[in-house]
Amino acid sequence: MKQAANKSLRKLANLRRQHKDLINLMPLQTGGILTDAAKEALKEFGDGYSVCDFCLGSLCDITNPPVRDFVHELLPQFLGCEVATITHGAREAKFIVMHSLAQPGNSIIVDGNRHYTTIVAAERAGLNVVEVPHSGYPEFRIDVNDYIPLIEKHNPKLILLTYPDGNYGNLPDATKLGKITQEYGIPYILNGAYAVGRMPIKMSDVGADFIIGSGHKSMASAGPCGVLGMKKKWEEIVLRKAKAYSNKEVELLGCTLRGVPLITLMASFPYVKERVNHWDEQVAKTQWFSGELEKLGFKQLGEKPHRHDLLHFEAPMLYDISKRVRERGYFFYKELKDRGIWGPQPGMTKAFKVSTFAANKEQLVFVVNSFKAILSKYS
Amino acid sequence: MKQAANKSLRKLANLRRQHKDLINLMPLQTGGILTDAAKEALKEFGDGYSVCDFCLGSLCDITNPPVRDFVHELLPQFLGCEVATITHGAREAKFIVMHSLAQPGNSIIVDGNRHYTTIVAAERAGLNVVEVPHSGYPEFRIDVNDYIPLIEKHNPKLILLTYPDGNYGNLPDATKLGKITQEYGIPYILNGAYAVGRMPIKMSDVGADFIIGSGHKSMASAGPCGVLGMKKKWEEIVLRKAKAYSNKEVELLGCTLRGVPLITLMASFPYVKERVNHWDEQVAKTQWFSGELEKLGFKQLGEKPHRHDLLHFEAPMLYDISKRVRERGYFFYKELKDRGIWGPQPGMTKAFKVSTFAANKEQLVFVVNSFKAILSKYS
Repeated sequence: MKQAANKSLRKLANLRRQHKDLINLMPLQTGGILTDAAKEALKEFGDGYSVCDFCLGSLCDITNPPVRDFVHELLPQFLGCEVATITHGAREAKFIVMHSLAQPGNSIIVDGNRHYTTIVAAERAGLNVVEVPHSGYPEFRIDVNDYIPLIEKHNPKLILLTYPDGNYGNLPDATKLGKITQEYGIPYILNGAYAVGRMPIKMSDVGADFIIGSGHKSMASAGPCGVLGMKKKWEEIVLRKAKAYSNKEVELLGCTLRGVPLITLMASFPYVKERVNHWDEQVAKTQWFSGELEKLGFKQLGEKPHRHDLLHFEAPMLYDISKRVRERGYFFYKELKDRGIWGPQPGMTKAFKVSTFAANKEQLVFVVNSFKAILSKYS
Repeated sequence: MKQAANKSLRKLANLRRQHKDLINLMPLQTGGILTDAAKEALKEFGDGYSVCDFCLGSLCDITNPPVRDFVHELLPQFLGCEVATITHGAREAKFIVMHSLAQPGNSIIVDGNRHYTTIVAAERAGLNVVEVPHSGYPEFRIDVNDYIPLIEKHNPKLILLTYPDGNYGNLPDATKLGKITQEYGIPYILNGAYAVGRMPIKMSDVGADFIIGSGHKSMASAGPCGVLGMKKKWEEIVLRKAKAYSNKEVELLGCTLRGVPLITLMASFPYVKERVNHWDEQVAKTQWFSGELEKLGFKQLGEKPHRHDLLHFEAPMLYDISKRVRERGYFFYKELKDRGIWGPQPGMTKAFKVSTFAANKEQLVFVVNSFKAILSKYS
């Protein structure tokens, strides 16, 4: 027992990451790679509670480091909203809104491509979830008109749309859903965990009531870290203050991001704000990459032509190989790693997801050639 | 408008911490200073979601980095509990337990020295809070026998004790409260945000049902980061899985600490586990320091002799000075900073809080001499 503990303790010495400095295609990670400025800030503010040196009682009002300007001025402009705050991540932001606006037993309507945490957050808040079905294989599209009959049937307290979803990278018509929800007067959450920080997106253009982003997924930040923007009219409800503490928000438990992820979010922000202007280049890269992989026999699922860097491919050839090699499904991961590439979930070969966001064109050419070489090595 | 935004954006360049490398007496920070191993791990796993490279669906079961061994083996041993998990911090852990075990309208009983987040978490969960009064000025002691009549009157769903509290550093008789709560059969939360990682403390010795610690406050970790230990019997309730996702805990929204604070918690753990064995040296240092400050005319509040590094002093002499100098209350902060010392809240002079945890004896001698010099400079 004690020996086992000592062994476990020794494993904590010298923690190293195996996938450092590889070409990163991992959808969860490509938007969260730190800028050099964020790396510096990480070292500077690593110690616990060091962002709170000059706190006067409210995290979002700290002026040194300049949290106040960031949260109250820069973030609302960037998100196209009137009021913004910071959260531990997109899932926590969803729960905050659900817990504030709906009561246990109420219904909400979400898209069928929603992240699993939408369902878990709703369960935590005691809500019934009605899902708008997608179009099924191979495109899995969401038609936002399909919200209408469900709204009329279920009288939901909230509407949520995942934009894009994390499985196929589909971008449904968020703006049309804004018109629909406004017509019915139902608050509308746009979950932009894979949008905010990657592509241009403004809550005001969409006509949503809430916009949610993820620092570690798409804003070049360490985790856990997220942002939540809203219309002014929701501030008093969602960011209501504690009865006994007039500067502490109930749903934030006073403060959320009291640490280093916030500093990386802030340090990377000037870069992130600029990079969304180059989204058309990202989409062009994605479409080229998808075309090249289809030439090799992989089949891209989700919308075509694709409009987001997150790609999902069927790969029957890889699955066939995995059945006859010693490493089974892991052969693909190992072959890629040997070539300095990291991305598809280790062990998965029937289908895989990648993101072209962090790799440049030259690296993607190398990736395509590597895929080609792996296929011919085993053919 | 645009110019203001540009100015705010420029402030985000080159974020630097003013209190780096000073002698740190700040109670929120002295237990959260990173080890060298944690600083290395911070750089290694800084990028968003890099702890999730080998995730198979459950954060606490990741084997590389060794989250599984840490959460399921090392933490329970360290906390003296059967089941442990990781949270965004102590406040989030409190809310998780309250939200799982109590219904809106239920009552809970807490100590009068509780942290403000205990009240805010209870409000978020819709609970009524009954407080056990402290003994008042100057010691502000909690007598745990005072829980008994309140238990009999209010039929609480939960009992909470803050051990020690963050205002006076008092250590009430947690073990006696364990006997009381067991007798009445009421679940008992020990909030050890300032204990776990500083001093030896085991949930099993105390007889509590839950133990809560804070990574950024007391476990040499970056924030936000916490730990929650419990008896096995509560696992199915507090860590219940989502109906649709059998490996995702509802109260954790699937995963909590999906980022770099977890890595610092793990990297520092071998050191933290060892340092609690030197608690008697810490207490000796504190008592010496308190005695020296009392000789200078400061009055220590809270229990005497003091048994925790968190100290609260009344300082009428500093307040008198602040009324006649240009910098007002900030003179004390500036004088200390000029001498390489950081700790008392800037602007406060009537009373101040410090912690002797991170400073060695030699540094504390320097601090005492500095206090002396500041007093005589203005006398």
